[in-house]
Amino acid sequence: MTSFFVPVLDQIHQVEDLIRAQAEGYHPDLQAALEHLLKSGGKRIRPTLTLLVGRMLGAPEPQLITLAASIELLHTATLVHDDLIDGALLRRGIPTLNARWSPGATVLTGDFLFARAAKLAAETNSIPVMRLFAETLTIIVNGEISQMFNPPCISTLENYYQRIYAKTASLFEASTGCAAMISTTDNDLIMRLRHFGRELGMAFQIIDDILDLTGDETQLGKPIGSDLRQGIITLPVIRFLHTHPEDPFSQMILQGKCLQNDADILAFIERLRHSDAIEDAHQEAQRFIKNALDDLRTLPNSPEQQYLEELTWFVTQRKT
Amino acid sequence: MTSFFVPVLDQIHQVEDLIRAQAEGYHPDLQAALEHLLKSGGKRIRPTLTLLVGRMLGAPEPQLITLAASIELLHTATLVHDDLIDGALLRRGIPTLNARWSPGATVLTGDFLFARAAKLAAETNSIPVMRLFAETLTIIVNGEISQMFNPPCISTLENYYQRIYAKTASLFEASTGCAAMISTTDNDLIMRLRHFGRELGMAFQIIDDILDLTGDETQLGKPIGSDLRQGIITLPVIRFLHTHPEDPFSQMILQGKCLQNDADILAFIERLRHSDAIEDAHQEAQRFIKNALDDLRTLPNSPEQQYLEELTWFVTQRKT
Repeated sequence: MTSFFVPVLDQIHQVEDLIRAQAEGYHPDLQAALEHLLKSGGKRIRPTLTLLVGRMLGAPEPQLITLAASIELLHTATLVHDDLIDGALLRRGIPTLNARWSPGATVLTGDFLFARAAKLAAETNSIPVMRLFAETLTIIVNGEISQMFNPPCISTLENYYQRIYAKTASLFEASTGCAAMISTTDNDLIMRLRHFGRELGMAFQIIDDILDLTGDETQLGKPIGSDLRQGIITLPVIRFLHTHPEDPFSQMILQGKCLQNDADILAFIERLRHSDAIEDAHQEAQRFIKNALDDLRTLPNSPEQQYLEELTWFVTQRKT
Repeated sequence: MTSFFVPVLDQIHQVEDLIRAQAEGYHPDLQAALEHLLKSGGKRIRPTLTLLVGRMLGAPEPQLITLAASIELLHTATLVHDDLIDGALLRRGIPTLNARWSPGATVLTGDFLFARAAKLAAETNSIPVMRLFAETLTIIVNGEISQMFNPPCISTLENYYQRIYAKTASLFEASTGCAAMISTTDNDLIMRLRHFGRELGMAFQIIDDILDLTGDETQLGKPIGSDLRQGIITLPVIRFLHTHPEDPFSQMILQGKCLQNDADILAFIERLRHSDAIEDAHQEAQRFIKNALDDLRTLPNSPEQQYLEELTWFVTQRKT
């Protein structure tokens, strides 16, 4: 157990109970689905962020638990539709909902979770929270739509950063930003905490993208190189293209062509792992981490501020 | 043009413009999809209800337009996912989104519309509106999930009323209820207007279900008996089962078996049309209409109250 989880462990359990309660009184299959999704776990890093920021700023506890549940449930809902669209059968090594259910049932379960996440957001009684919640969902979905409609294997840095902001950093930003919004009306403080969440989220996704190329398949619960297989070009690849434009694989990707088969993808990953590309991408993540830490250091000293700093370091060092 | 649309025609155009604006700045394909959905039309009966109730109670106009757009967009979003799940290729005679797009793109477009509907709801700056919005979405989706997971051809009245409340009356209730919520804090008045919307919505759906058996295919834009084909038992059928339990088709349905082929379905519809079942169902719709009119008559006299009364009569007499 990483230290910064400990102070909010009891609240994380309350968050999970509140999420579980969202299916009570509805169709029994929804309860089963939600239970399955809760067991599929994840690190609960988003609600942990919400709880730590909220506690740091003195947010009322019931409102904070409600908000953290809303954030995690929104995250879960997007994963349900994501896995369906990607046809993913495993997430974190555990069968996805769509591996067992029909597409229609999976679509509706995702919709139900959106509805319950929106209901919890409304129960925070904060208009700014509701607005940021809806705005964040818009950004996430627009990002997925752009990825679907744009040609595959786009290798510009601009496209990459837009994509990971939409996919990950926007919800990290909402996790910290909404916690600030229910705690204070100090707009400057809210903006700093949104910025902190955003930068942390960018680093988080870069590390995720590095692990997709360097990680342990068993620990990741998915095969290495899944991004490349889906025609998604991530930061380590972009860095490799930059430093090895003469490489034949680089040539292909730079011309907007995707690597065609498993052997090519694995050969390319092998070269990439032995280049500076991984280290370059790590350094880029560190740049976001530094920004996040700078944001934290403008805040008054508190135990939660220390925990948030630890969490920030944890993001760069994680292996799954 | 039916008279009660006239006083809100200008605002309905504003509502449509606001809906259209929701895709601005996002992926161009989303703009195209939204344009297509707006052209596919519909009678805009829900935003008309919202506008008339809001005007009657003196709601601030910009807030009212925003709310009406939110309601119509929520309705549109649910139709997009519905058509995908049902595999419907036409709605009101016009190709559905999923007739032209991949399932993934259709799921995400629906999600985007949910997000924008939630954003508009948040922009009303009303916590009660946000809560009812989320609650209504929950009810609609839970209804669809129940229909999917329950066995087909359930012929109890209880199941029927639950289903049409979830499918239709809940959003009618939100259309009138939210309009009241942004206009007044008088809880009794809000409850009466929610009740009015709910009863009207129940009648609306009963008429819809009658038209599915008696209507003109060209006007409906879908084949006759589409409910029966999907294993959905509606009020006219339930009435026929009640008055003709000896009929062999009734026997089948009462034993929980669905009619198996087109010829049986058409033969059954033929018998049903020549029985009292249609008239019985109409009388049941009239019972809801009477309740709705009773609610209206408790309100202070105003032009909008008259228009709402006309709209209520229109619902029972419509042919599409």
